Amino acid sequence: MKISIIGLGLIGGSFGLSLKKRSDDYHIIGWDAHAGNLARAFELGLVDEAATGLEAAVQSADWIVLAVPVDAIEHLLPHIMRNLRQDQYVVDFGSTKEQICRVADTLPNRRQFLAAHPIAGTEYSGPEAAFSSLYEDKMMIVCDQEKTAPEALEVFRKLCKLTGMTTTYLSAASHDVHLAYVSHLSHVIAFSLSQTVLKKEEDDNRILDLAGSGFASTVRLAKSSPEMWTPIFLKNKKAILESIDQYMEKMGRFRDFLENEETTSIHEFLTKGREIRKILK
Amino acid sequence: MKISIIGLGLIGGSFGLSLKKRSDDYHIIGWDAHAGNLARAFELGLVDEAATGLEAAVQSADWIVLAVPVDAIEHLLPHIMRNLRQDQYVVDFGSTKEQICRVADTLPNRRQFLAAHPIAGTEYSGPEAAFSSLYEDKMMIVCDQEKTAPEALEVFRKLCKLTGMTTTYLSAASHDVHLAYVSHLSHVIAFSLSQTVLKKEEDDNRILDLAGSGFASTVRLAKSSPEMWTPIFLKNKKAILESIDQYMEKMGRFRDFLENEETTSIHEFLTKGREIRKILK
Repeated sequence: MKISIIGLGLIGGSFGLSLKKRSDDYHIIGWDAHAGNLARAFELGLVDEAATGLEAAVQSADWIVLAVPVDAIEHLLPHIMRNLRQDQYVVDFGSTKEQICRVADTLPNRRQFLAAHPIAGTEYSGPEAAFSSLYEDKMMIVCDQEKTAPEALEVFRKLCKLTGMTTTYLSAASHDVHLAYVSHLSHVIAFSLSQTVLKKEEDDNRILDLAGSGFASTVRLAKSSPEMWTPIFLKNKKAILESIDQYMEKMGRFRDFLENEETTSIHEFLTKGREIRKILK
Repeated sequence: MKISIIGLGLIGGSFGLSLKKRSDDYHIIGWDAHAGNLARAFELGLVDEAATGLEAAVQSADWIVLAVPVDAIEHLLPHIMRNLRQDQYVVDFGSTKEQICRVADTLPNRRQFLAAHPIAGTEYSGPEAAFSSLYEDKMMIVCDQEKTAPEALEVFRKLCKLTGMTTTYLSAASHDVHLAYVSHLSHVIAFSLSQTVLKKEEDDNRILDLAGSGFASTVRLAKSSPEMWTPIFLKNKKAILESIDQYMEKMGRFRDFLENEETTSIHEFLTKGREIRKILK
């Protein structure tokens, strides 16, 4: 089976590498709009073959994986889907799903499209960031699966399993709300914290010398790619705004407790927050 | 040399264990107000000897290390310092320093006291959380060092070096402002994020199944001990409120950019925030 991966950064590159490492049954073709990324991905062995162009990558594949920023997925999807043969399938790995699915729903061969989101990643990006175990023990969310041909779902589930992922199902709308809370909000937080501390550092350049592992952990996601994250925020605006408002309300409540030195309320706030340890390892 | 460690949680327990592992020159005596912690710390080998009481621990030691919550340090300090012999020294490991130093400044034998803060820790607490490499490659901040006898500073610097720490110096006031930004704020953020997501989970119990490593990293500090953190927040109220306000201002700015779909401003916000990668590994 031939799989073409469009976009050879952390997500696409790791998917190719992971399949190559675990099976000889797949021939992985790569394409990236940045010539440097394409050459580097091939050098690093993330793909078996570097395509000569997007058209060629699409035409020669049984499966086409879109691992580009979410705005680029929306642009590419109609073009790719309209030229699809009946035996080809397209899957996207975008971090937002509702708007992409809305675009897909307008296309005639909707059943050959599968909307997916691997819950895996690091704060690094580009082909150099790719590694073969990225998907180990991770979750692949498939959205609006009733709109995809069952045989395609089955093949995709097997591909995911090979990379170490378990497949789970969710509506695109529900996916976007969930992810706003458990992923997108964390990124807003990290970027805002980073800016706050960098601003303070302008007055006092010793401040970051004193940062320990706690700060490093909380701010880690601020190293993420603005090219990837700007469209994610915009595509999931409504749910992210809701999560920011909920979060700022909680923080504002803590701020008031502290201002008024309400010891018991502060202790209760922390005790409630600490419940997360029962859920996260 | 005999060292008594008062408080045998993560910080005190790891300090004892680290010294014991690296040298035979120190006899480590432990005391903890919770009998269970004391017994467990002895069982785990964090200390050589379990004291029969606080008085006994203080009287038999050359150095007394206070590794209890910051409010308890303030309560204990006058009592311990007033009964100190001339050849004894006291060091505290509290995460806030200004109010503790203010208390110390009123005591006659101020030069036998050293105000310190090891920039090390995890989200776990208690003797079970202690481990011998906690202080490896970490920083020990010593505050208002000009008020401490030079010979005490020298001995303490050597103890820290043995555990793997480098000693650095800062005024107590400056320490508290710095730590508000690079540590305490991160904890407020984590507890607030945790509460936001746990609240959302009440409506939808699948939400945390979908959380990836990014959320886990951002929320990690919410597992920290409310007993330790409530007094830290209260003792460093002014600087923490300032840092929260600065942070909420940044986040509010991002929120407005998103609401108005200002793509360029969002991209700039992320690009500025991402500068942190040049500073943090």
